[in-house]
Amino acid sequence: MILTDLRSDTVTRPTPEMLQAMFAAPVGDDVFGEDPTVNALEEKTASMFGLEAGLFCPSGTMTNQIAIKAHTEPLSEVICDYTAHIYQYEGGGIAANSGASVYLLHGERGKITPELIRGGIRPNNIHYPLSKLVALENTSNKGGGSYYTLPEITAITETCRQHNLALHLDGARVFNALVAANESALPYGACFDSISVCLSKGLGTPVGSVLLGSKPFIQKARRIRKVFGGGMRQAGYLAAAGIYALDNHINRLADDHAKARILAETLQSCSFVQEMQPVDTNIVIFRLVDAVTEEQFLRELATQNILALDFGPQTIRLVTHLDFTEAMLEHTVKVLKNLNF
Amino acid sequence: MILTDLRSDTVTRPTPEMLQAMFAAPVGDDVFGEDPTVNALEEKTASMFGLEAGLFCPSGTMTNQIAIKAHTEPLSEVICDYTAHIYQYEGGGIAANSGASVYLLHGERGKITPELIRGGIRPNNIHYPLSKLVALENTSNKGGGSYYTLPEITAITETCRQHNLALHLDGARVFNALVAANESALPYGACFDSISVCLSKGLGTPVGSVLLGSKPFIQKARRIRKVFGGGMRQAGYLAAAGIYALDNHINRLADDHAKARILAETLQSCSFVQEMQPVDTNIVIFRLVDAVTEEQFLRELATQNILALDFGPQTIRLVTHLDFTEAMLEHTVKVLKNLNF
Amino acid sequence: MILTDLRSDTVTRPTPEMLQAMFAAPVGDDVFGEDPTVNALEEKTASMFGLEAGLFCPSGTMTNQIAIKAHTEPLSEVICDYTAHIYQYEGGGIAANSGASVYLLHGERGKITPELIRGGIRPNNIHYPLSKLVALENTSNKGGGSYYTLPEITAITETCRQHNLALHLDGARVFNALVAANESALPYGACFDSISVCLSKGLGTPVGSVLLGSKPFIQKARRIRKVFGGGMRQAGYLAAAGIYALDNHINRLADDHAKARILAETLQSCSFVQEMQPVDTNIVIFRLVDAVTEEQFLRELATQNILALDFGPQTIRLVTHLDFTEAMLEHTVKVLKNLNF
Amino acid sequence: MILTDLRSDTVTRPTPEMLQAMFAAPVGDDVFGEDPTVNALEEKTASMFGLEAGLFCPSGTMTNQIAIKAHTEPLSEVICDYTAHIYQYEGGGIAANSGASVYLLHGERGKITPELIRGGIRPNNIHYPLSKLVALENTSNKGGGSYYTLPEITAITETCRQHNLALHLDGARVFNALVAANESALPYGACFDSISVCLSKGLGTPVGSVLLGSKPFIQKARRIRKVFGGGMRQAGYLAAAGIYALDNHINRLADDHAKARILAETLQSCSFVQEMQPVDTNIVIFRLVDAVTEEQFLRELATQNILALDFGPQTIRLVTHLDFTEAMLEHTVKVLKNLNF
Repeated sequence: MILTDLRSDTVTRPTPEMLQAMFAAPVGDDVFGEDPTVNALEEKTASMFGLEAGLFCPSGTMTNQIAIKAHTEPLSEVICDYTAHIYQYEGGGIAANSGASVYLLHGERGKITPELIRGGIRPNNIHYPLSKLVALENTSNKGGGSYYTLPEITAITETCRQHNLALHLDGARVFNALVAANESALPYGACFDSISVCLSKGLGTPVGSVLLGSKPFIQKARRIRKVFGGGMRQAGYLAAAGIYALDNHINRLADDHAKARILAETLQSCSFVQEMQPVDTNIVIFRLVDAVTEEQFLRELATQNILALDFGPQTIRLVTHLDFTEAMLEHTVKVLKNLNF
Repeated sequence: MILTDLRSDTVTRPTPEMLQAMFAAPVGDDVFGEDPTVNALEEKTASMFGLEAGLFCPSGTMTNQIAIKAHTEPLSEVICDYTAHIYQYEGGGIAANSGASVYLLHGERGKITPELIRGGIRPNNIHYPLSKLVALENTSNKGGGSYYTLPEITAITETCRQHNLALHLDGARVFNALVAANESALPYGACFDSISVCLSKGLGTPVGSVLLGSKPFIQKARRIRKVFGGGMRQAGYLAAAGIYALDNHINRLADDHAKARILAETLQSCSFVQEMQPVDTNIVIFRLVDAVTEEQFLRELATQNILALDFGPQTIRLVTHLDFTEAMLEHTVKVLKNLNF
Repeated sequence: MILTDLRSDTVTRPTPEMLQAMFAAPVGDDVFGEDPTVNALEEKTASMFGLEAGLFCPSGTMTNQIAIKAHTEPLSEVICDYTAHIYQYEGGGIAANSGASVYLLHGERGKITPELIRGGIRPNNIHYPLSKLVALENTSNKGGGSYYTLPEITAITETCRQHNLALHLDGARVFNALVAANESALPYGACFDSISVCLSKGLGTPVGSVLLGSKPFIQKARRIRKVFGGGMRQAGYLAAAGIYALDNHINRLADDHAKARILAETLQSCSFVQEMQPVDTNIVIFRLVDAVTEEQFLRELATQNILALDFGPQTIRLVTHLDFTEAMLEHTVKVLKNLNF
Repeated sequence: MILTDLRSDTVTRPTPEMLQAMFAAPVGDDVFGEDPTVNALEEKTASMFGLEAGLFCPSGTMTNQIAIKAHTEPLSEVICDYTAHIYQYEGGGIAANSGASVYLLHGERGKITPELIRGGIRPNNIHYPLSKLVALENTSNKGGGSYYTLPEITAITETCRQHNLALHLDGARVFNALVAANESALPYGACFDSISVCLSKGLGTPVGSVLLGSKPFIQKARRIRKVFGGGMRQAGYLAAAGIYALDNHINRLADDHAKARILAETLQSCSFVQEMQPVDTNIVIFRLVDAVTEEQFLRELATQNILALDFGPQTIRLVTHLDFTEAMLEHTVKVLKNLNF
């Protein structure tokens, strides 16, 4: 029986067409700036988002961590929601890589507002770090796939400009947000000083993220990537998958969202579910009733060849993606309906 | 008219007797370990608190920051209340000096509990920083001078030991806590892995704090002090004030607490006060009614030669201390009673 | 006319067989530890070198920088030759990533000795950083491809053990060293605490290096890789190239060495060469006579479709590799012989 | 018998007049910027050196380390002689505090030149750190008290300006240099972007150094001092000693130099001396003949109540100072002449 893996949208394997594109790619030594496919991917992604330049990196954690280091200086502080991936799941990198402090906001489902941001800006006083950077995550992972609309982002951009704060977007799942909001990527370039665009989640490539920004920003970023050891040689094989995905895998995210909604509807009527988070994109988060532990639940699912993720006390996360087929959806719905504890 | 300065207990000047002790002190080059007065202060403070060794430093910020650096390693996280001085008022030093992340708890009036701490310990997973250190602040400044009792501390110590976490005390106002709780310093040595004892707040010395810990910890701390540039030469003049204060200025803190209570009682019935924090030691924090801004309030007080501190939106802090005399108290009470907005 | 690229052995493109192996590789999400090809590469490399575990990373800079961070702690110092890649060409990463100081030795052609190392160990005194790590580079890039023999390494290992120093090998071109010395990789495991094995230089893969060490060391390294953002998802495509290269591209390095010797012999009699470094492996370094600048020389070569590297004032580097064919060698020799300035 | 301590000029104790000045100083809380004596010292020192502002710190290590952190950014490199105190004796602080790399020059007796500096500037290439700061030490400690003349400094300043490098002076013994060169402090302000002026060496105060620079630089420095924990409260007692020393202890340094020359002349004819460094100011460095170890030599001196410093293999350092009297000089000369091994 085939495995249904709902732990994350990072688990996808390239489609045959993507694999074909990868191994047909012309490559060169990217450390010398000579990989044509890497260059093409960087330019394509930048122009989609209306920014000047791009930098291909091995992971979204690296694009985020580079952005933070490039936007801050020693004694700085980063303002973000306490659920942000950059704070919660990047190994303490804000402090470890950049020596930057954090001001943690408590937004709604991972989304912060101009008002919250203003409350997090430190007075100009040597007792405090320097407020330098605001970071958004769109969609928000811990927020269950919630997303910002462009007007919400624009208001935040305005606040940041007024207070001389840089604004970074962790776009791990930015295309899920754009598809759900029915918006285009282009206006983002005017809103953000840097964007991290992940290719290996919903877009389905094996490896990589692109960091976007102005030319001087990306030059600085390239230096930091070098120091982290993120510069790769013939990376065009990976970049080709990114180009293919940008051309072919964006619109189909609506499918993942529809499947997530079906899972959510199914779960809503399951006796073992205590509470569901709203489902806006491809992430489904719910709390188990007290009588059922995460371990128990995951074990039961696993016996039916379905994998899900323990997402904190009593909490389970399911993520739909390219490799989660109709047949798997049917199977999963059936299994969930029949689960008894 | 004499200035009544209630901004902080750091504003005190040495008494004539303390000044006498300072300038009679034998001194030597402490970088060679040869200042007898520094050595005596370090030993005296350590043995009061039941710890092996001490290190005299220019400030409480330095003793705290050294402790954090000594207890952590790269990729570590410090668990503390979000109001903690080490996080709020040391310029982002946890990240800047130690590259350590923070897990911020939301305790009551700055005080955290074993349960909160347990909730802040990260799972053993490379996505998270390593939980390494818990830090308490006793009394809590932002908590309005609230204090832990020994049983409360002991419970926290137990939790830390179970989870292999070091426990540091920011003892900026530890003697206020001990006097208020009617407890002795000695049992602290068994509870904490390191203690920062400030001499220049309630104790009334001009400069300095002592960091306490085991002998190997203090050896490591000495190295870090060197790198920060905190090693001083003939520092015995300053240390002598510390010895004098430990001998003469602890019990009199009860006086500061009594005066703080009188201020609190006065404020309780003032029309411009919206809300008062409980007053447990020498810190008085209150919120102004919406009609009165902090600036207005401080300006009015200043016309009567009284200084207080703006402590956030609508919030004022008063701190009583050695140089806040009976006459000043009477004057302040009269002024507060007559204030009209 | 085909380009002859002698700038570095990093410029190679995969052979059709290697590409085939990549294409066919089974992959999985390596962040979950589930990429079978990555796991196989890590195990294969570790066991070749007699060490417990391996970690696949995007570059040799990353494997080196992770090793440095894992072996040091704040206030540490790394001892290495002043020509070392980790000091000269990794963007200042020793300090930037690990906060570690450097003690720079002046060895012969990049090679250091037990005596030099002993002279670089700091006394135990708070004025000095803590001597923690010695790093070798084998072969030495700036040393013109010079290599250590096993007895030379063993003597260094002994010195390090005596002084409680960790020993890291930057094995960017370790297989060139082993082939030239006619030695096996296996005894290295007993000599080094960590080894960085590069796959994308002489071995000819597109991307990647493997860091080797004990199991606890690699666990720590995995954490640091995460924080740098070096964790990749379906990295098996890249790892497959590594497995292929370890199986097929080691012995053929003798060929690269032979070609380098032929280039060296040719250059020896060229009027524009002032001085040649000895040629031990696949690197050829020479100084131009004062009348010819690097720019001039490189321009002339380029007109003949040959690329070389400016390696400092008056200095040129040529590196032979997998994609430098017999025909290219003949062409290059002819061009060099006919060059006139 | 009185102890003759020639280990360092840091061992001096305040004269009765200096102590009197300290005792009588008006003080305030310097964290609030309200210590009048600290303010006076900062202004006085700044205007002596023709710079805008000053910052009083607990040590010369701190003023140096703050300057390095303020002048650099992540991924930067500091260019200095390999003998520099900032590199050799500040615990690895360049890397530990600022994450900055070092480019070490090999000057003559600790003094570097425009040519050496130019050779240390990195090309603009992501493989290298960013060359940001040049640091001089005047006089040079490891150079045996050698000093730069103003024309030598001016030439270096020009080079730094051309290459957009900041220039810092570690002026641990800057007054020894000025007195020896018969120069004034004032022109230094036009040469350096920052100066660290130590008060507790030749000037004879118990504690402290002043960091000088432009107003924005000192504002940034104040922030860094806060994060290191170098902010002190009623520091005016220490600052008063500084003011007294600047008024009274500069010209008398000529005396220390004269005494150093007499020691040097004496040593020149001693059989146990293998080699003497030139003596330009108050530092005397010599090598012992192979038959005599440092330990032996220091032990012999100690039996005559004279202390000197082990300054590396076979090397001894003597430093003359305020507390080294005529009588002590006579005693020391006699002892040296009679020493037999």
